[in-house]
Amino acid sequence: MRNRRGRERRESGGPPGQLPWARVTNPFPPLELLRPEQLDAIDDAAFTILEEIGLDFLSPEAMPVLRAGGADVEPGSQRVHFGREVIREWVGKAPQHYLVKGRDPARDVGFGGNEMVFSLVASAPNCSDLEHGRRPGSFDDFCRFVRLGEVLNAVHVFGGYPVEPVDLPAATRHLDCQRAFIELGTKPIHAYSLGRRRILDAIELVKLGHGIDDQTLEEAPRLTSIINTSSPLRLDGPMIEGMLELAARLQCCVITPFTLSGAMAPATVVGAIAQQHAEALAGIAFYQMIRAGAPCAYGGFTSNVDMKSGAPAFGTPEYFRSTVISGQLARRWRLPYRSSNVNAANSVDAQAAYESMFSLWACVAGGANFIKHAAGWLEGGLVCSLEKTMLDADLIQMIRACMEPVVVDSDALGLDAMREVGPGGHYFGAAHTLARFETAFHAPMISDWRNFQSWQEAGSPDAARHAHDRALALLDTYEQPPLDSARKSALDDFVERRKREGGVLAA
Amino acid sequence: MRNRRGRERRESGGPPGQLPWARVTNPFPPLELLRPEQLDAIDDAAFTILEEIGLDFLSPEAMPVLRAGGADVEPGSQRVHFGREVIREWVGKAPQHYLVKGRDPARDVGFGGNEMVFSLVASAPNCSDLEHGRRPGSFDDFCRFVRLGEVLNAVHVFGGYPVEPVDLPAATRHLDCQRAFIELGTKPIHAYSLGRRRILDAIELVKLGHGIDDQTLEEAPRLTSIINTSSPLRLDGPMIEGMLELAARLQCCVITPFTLSGAMAPATVVGAIAQQHAEALAGIAFYQMIRAGAPCAYGGFTSNVDMKSGAPAFGTPEYFRSTVISGQLARRWRLPYRSSNVNAANSVDAQAAYESMFSLWACVAGGANFIKHAAGWLEGGLVCSLEKTMLDADLIQMIRACMEPVVVDSDALGLDAMREVGPGGHYFGAAHTLARFETAFHAPMISDWRNFQSWQEAGSPDAARHAHDRALALLDTYEQPPLDSARKSALDDFVERRKREGGVLAA
Repeated sequence: MRNRRGRERRESGGPPGQLPWARVTNPFPPLELLRPEQLDAIDDAAFTILEEIGLDFLSPEAMPVLRAGGADVEPGSQRVHFGREVIREWVGKAPQHYLVKGRDPARDVGFGGNEMVFSLVASAPNCSDLEHGRRPGSFDDFCRFVRLGEVLNAVHVFGGYPVEPVDLPAATRHLDCQRAFIELGTKPIHAYSLGRRRILDAIELVKLGHGIDDQTLEEAPRLTSIINTSSPLRLDGPMIEGMLELAARLQCCVITPFTLSGAMAPATVVGAIAQQHAEALAGIAFYQMIRAGAPCAYGGFTSNVDMKSGAPAFGTPEYFRSTVISGQLARRWRLPYRSSNVNAANSVDAQAAYESMFSLWACVAGGANFIKHAAGWLEGGLVCSLEKTMLDADLIQMIRACMEPVVVDSDALGLDAMREVGPGGHYFGAAHTLARFETAFHAPMISDWRNFQSWQEAGSPDAARHAHDRALALLDTYEQPPLDSARKSALDDFVERRKREGGVLAA
Repeated sequence: MRNRRGRERRESGGPPGQLPWARVTNPFPPLELLRPEQLDAIDDAAFTILEEIGLDFLSPEAMPVLRAGGADVEPGSQRVHFGREVIREWVGKAPQHYLVKGRDPARDVGFGGNEMVFSLVASAPNCSDLEHGRRPGSFDDFCRFVRLGEVLNAVHVFGGYPVEPVDLPAATRHLDCQRAFIELGTKPIHAYSLGRRRILDAIELVKLGHGIDDQTLEEAPRLTSIINTSSPLRLDGPMIEGMLELAARLQCCVITPFTLSGAMAPATVVGAIAQQHAEALAGIAFYQMIRAGAPCAYGGFTSNVDMKSGAPAFGTPEYFRSTVISGQLARRWRLPYRSSNVNAANSVDAQAAYESMFSLWACVAGGANFIKHAAGWLEGGLVCSLEKTMLDADLIQMIRACMEPVVVDSDALGLDAMREVGPGGHYFGAAHTLARFETAFHAPMISDWRNFQSWQEAGSPDAARHAHDRALALLDTYEQPPLDSARKSALDDFVERRKREGGVLAA
């Protein structure tokens, strides 16, 4: 039925048919790029880094926690060393699999195991679409992308602000954005660990918006947050504050070193991964020291720079390899694994597509559980693109279709159809074909399979143009999900009060 | 060194640095999409097709061979039935691995095992480039693409005429093209099985051009040919004539049913594969009946049609699955496996890139040995594109880079660099980085990693534009490989004589 609807709508210029929303399980065995003894060597290098060099924790609040957990804090210093048994003990307390809940329980997703959770692009300072061009993000843009993320079945969660609404004051921006996430969508949301006040506000808002108390909040995370180390080998104060508050409430932190090989990490993939591994393990151990069992994930974000210009590169062979190897490391530590769908293209051209495909297949081959920036990322993350969001959603759906189980039975084998058609015939009119006319094959949202002449007569639309039209048509179908009026009032009251207080300036 | 040269040339607008020519081995374990009992069911369905329905062989010349081999030829009919033991016996005689030789022994490649051989696009009636647009192919175009295929290290072999030179008379076209393959290139070449005369001419030309006698020709194939069944369940006369002559001389035939699901095969991937499997196994058995041990390969070309329009679709989830499953079947029959890098886009846009990436990753995951149309195919094969050729060559090089062994040693791990840089530093000036400045990372030929402003100031070139410029720069480096003057005269004399005789009209 969905395929038929998809075709009808496409003909009429309406929204494309989507696959139904579903939790996605990756049935393919992960690629084992490194041998066990090579993984041992990386583990050992990470241990050596943490024992010998150590990590700087840029907040005194971390120190009592670290000391109590058995880490070695240099007196009067930010430098912290970890013995390998301390790391093993604490990382071993992290859960292997957990639910992350949306406002609508039908949108809950699982982190870990073989599950794949796809998030909308996050944290781009700019956005773009073919109609309005490239521009700094506004709150209107933010809301538009949240609506698109809500309506796209390929998108499971919001991984952060799709675009930074720079027209809103920085001190209260998080209040508007967190409220908009809750009001405009039903899927799991994200909060930035940019200091204690913002995180506490986000925690309060999700409780008010979901209509839950502290105890229910602790039953399963409703907020995810990305903890980026300030590589090399540092964890900054605002991130530490976020971790302290989120772990205390059993919310989810994804510890993701930002290790660009050749810039913030050694100029070898293996060296950058060793550093990433040390930073991630230390961060996860610290998170467990705050509260054992707090949901977290191992984040890999190791790519390379163009050595000549220093520009970050994404969707490269180095990115492929680091993504797959990071997955091996996360699995041996029994941690949910986060990676990303990234590229460094400046427009939605062939480069954007092939770099994204290298990234997405790396996520599949690497067994990634949480694929951040899965839809919409362009320009190495500097742009959230309307067309790229739609294109990526289509790629995710195609990957889902590749992963569906293959049925081999007499109906699928179709021997009766072959007997009916015989040598030299054709299958267009066969009963076996007619019975499958509407549903036989996956219907992509963007691919244009018309012949050249028809395509030319239609104005030679490229994939970016189709993506633009399909995104607008899908946005037209968006309806704001209902929210209980008492919860709505509670959200508004909280936001109004906190704005009166000056937002984070009043903290 | 290659990376440094690549960068220098790119800055100066010169040709891009390429990876060196190399035989390519796929180190990744193949994806096992179907379970063994599901593969048994497909084998069994193929046997049932060949036993019950049978195949039409559209040439009386095939019948004595088939009868002698134990097939069941209906008297006075083209219909041939095969018992499963007959199929098992003859297919079992096919070699699992063999060399295919070029004019230059340094360009020999291996078919089978874990090797991957990438061929230039073949058989497109049209060609296109950004400068001259889309047009029917000419002999000038043919030669230009052969030069590009010769100079591209990512291309191993010529898989047929990259574009059909429709300005040459059909009766003698093969003489000009086969001579041009030999004169302009050194890599292994292809001959079309379009009747006995053309194949005999191609055999004679390769002997003259390579300066070898019949015995040397039989030592290893120097010609590959694609045998397409006229699906469903037919093998036509011109193909049979080619098989008879090529098998007799131990040249290589790739038996490739053209089974578009929903058109020439059932509207299920599994049914289309069952039919493909029956056709391929019968063709390979027949090839071995002509001469046991003749080199051949199992070709898979199962994709789906858009059920509404009948247009063929490529690089779809169905294509991915059929490519991977066909690889499983080829491996269980111990046959080299041919697949393709295909897409149905009308321009070198995001669709062309992502459909090609689905195809290429299917070839990697499916363990394909011979990847036809690996560089240059557009519009479902109706166009040979200059820019797509270059883009695909870059994708092949990126895949090769993903496959390179990962070294994990103390140098790669870089602990000394981390000790030098410490928490909060950066690696730009580290000794470990400076030692790798030129060679650290794979340098793609096309990807543009400049920031948006620089890219915009340069005229916002997309990947197709870069591919165009890089292809022209590479073509500028082409030098015709030397050919012994006696061989050259022999080629010319043969072509002239055969043209005087009227080419295939005189057969």
